[in-house]
Amino acid sequence: MRNRPIGVFDSGLGGLTTVNELRKILPHEDIIYLGDTARVPYGTKSRETVLKYAEQDFGFLSRLGVKFTIAACGTVSSVKVGEDSFDADLCTGVIIPAVKAACRATVNKRIGVIATSASIRSESYERLIKYVMPEAKVFSKACPMFVPLVENGYVGRECEPTAAFAREYLSPLKDEGIDVLILGCTHYPLLSDVISDVVGGGVKLISSGAEAARCAKMLLEQKGLLCEGKSAGKMKLYCTDSPELFKENASRFIDISGATVERCSVE
Amino acid sequence: MRNRPIGVFDSGLGGLTTVNELRKILPHEDIIYLGDTARVPYGTKSRETVLKYAEQDFGFLSRLGVKFTIAACGTVSSVKVGEDSFDADLCTGVIIPAVKAACRATVNKRIGVIATSASIRSESYERLIKYVMPEAKVFSKACPMFVPLVENGYVGRECEPTAAFAREYLSPLKDEGIDVLILGCTHYPLLSDVISDVVGGGVKLISSGAEAARCAKMLLEQKGLLCEGKSAGKMKLYCTDSPELFKENASRFIDISGATVERCSVE
Repeated sequence: MRNRPIGVFDSGLGGLTTVNELRKILPHEDIIYLGDTARVPYGTKSRETVLKYAEQDFGFLSRLGVKFTIAACGTVSSVKVGEDSFDADLCTGVIIPAVKAACRATVNKRIGVIATSASIRSESYERLIKYVMPEAKVFSKACPMFVPLVENGYVGRECEPTAAFAREYLSPLKDEGIDVLILGCTHYPLLSDVISDVVGGGVKLISSGAEAARCAKMLLEQKGLLCEGKSAGKMKLYCTDSPELFKENASRFIDISGATVERCSVE
Repeated sequence: MRNRPIGVFDSGLGGLTTVNELRKILPHEDIIYLGDTARVPYGTKSRETVLKYAEQDFGFLSRLGVKFTIAACGTVSSVKVGEDSFDADLCTGVIIPAVKAACRATVNKRIGVIATSASIRSESYERLIKYVMPEAKVFSKACPMFVPLVENGYVGRECEPTAAFAREYLSPLKDEGIDVLILGCTHYPLLSDVISDVVGGGVKLISSGAEAARCAKMLLEQKGLLCEGKSAGKMKLYCTDSPELFKENASRFIDISGATVERCSVE
């Protein structure tokens, strides 16, 4: 069991920011990644549709025999959080780890959350923060253009349209005096520079995907499920659309040299 | 046969610009529209995936007994153009009608084409223009951010990020001295103002979706298949994701009062 791979999935490329963190903190683990690129994005779709896609993604990784699954997708995490089989022993989403980190980090208890429309509509981040820290004030904002901007490579602080959307979405949060901002979608860490330019360097950014990776490490340690090998872990990437397109785009998120990329069907 | 509905489909909402034109020029016809909103967008996906989705969309409309089908999606049209069963007697895509209109309209034979990444990668517009008018010069540009901008409502000329993307994509075409520009994706007519601001009012914009509607009218007339009724045609809308989300977003494209909206599965 302990030498099986860790499974990570997302609607597209965003979850690779979680894989990056996993490889840093658990360099010996084998990782299987699934990006549902034939149906990306999830964040503009309805709860029922996201739930259906998430079940299929889970099923695919489970059939490959992973020992632990990370739903490295803020949208999936927001519609699944609270379900018995989710955020359980051998599975984590990104919301609980991100909320715990934000509540540890805030001093003035004014917490900002940015995520996809589906995640914000679910109010999952807000409800969980209120559960962990009832006295906290939460300021949420959907940022529907951030995923397409990242997927198309418009991520630099010199990209004026990206900066303009960041001002539109984030200025209201800055005005509320937040001291912590949860990046509630795993695509958003690629926009950290642009986001910090608007909210100011004093606001601590919490990467939900990186927090989920740290949570996975902790749970695997607790259960004695870390791998025994001491060589570098292998990485296998699956996508539901063209592997060529995936490789081209994934290299913006992560160093994929040495990894295999294969097309799969999850339906 | 002649009193059956006309079927129109697109990956999402863009094809509704075709429905708008159909209702203007064929007000007595019943129309069935399918938007594959659970898998939108198509334009960033691979040829194989778009072909698979298109077959399923065609199959759905065909099972409902439509008398004529319009693939009101530039991406689907670009991967299907040239196939025997496509752009045939009882079916049209948007590319052939748009190219014919552009070749009629150009004076200096310098034609611009903007479309999704998948459409531009297919080179379908370019090859067809060269076939119809071998001496034409064609200048093509993929505009990957236009669909998410439209789907999220950022369509006005006062929207600075939209204007910035329009300048990035369109300035090179303007510099080439085009006198006609094909809007090769059915979402783009909603950006006509912003597009004209960059290329100048002297450049004629060709709406591929509206041209497809006119082509459908001509073919139905030729075959004696126009409906006999003289009352206003009915409109039935299907979508693969939430009908509530669809209604909310569709009202930006079209007056849907009186139309029914239903969720369907096409897989």
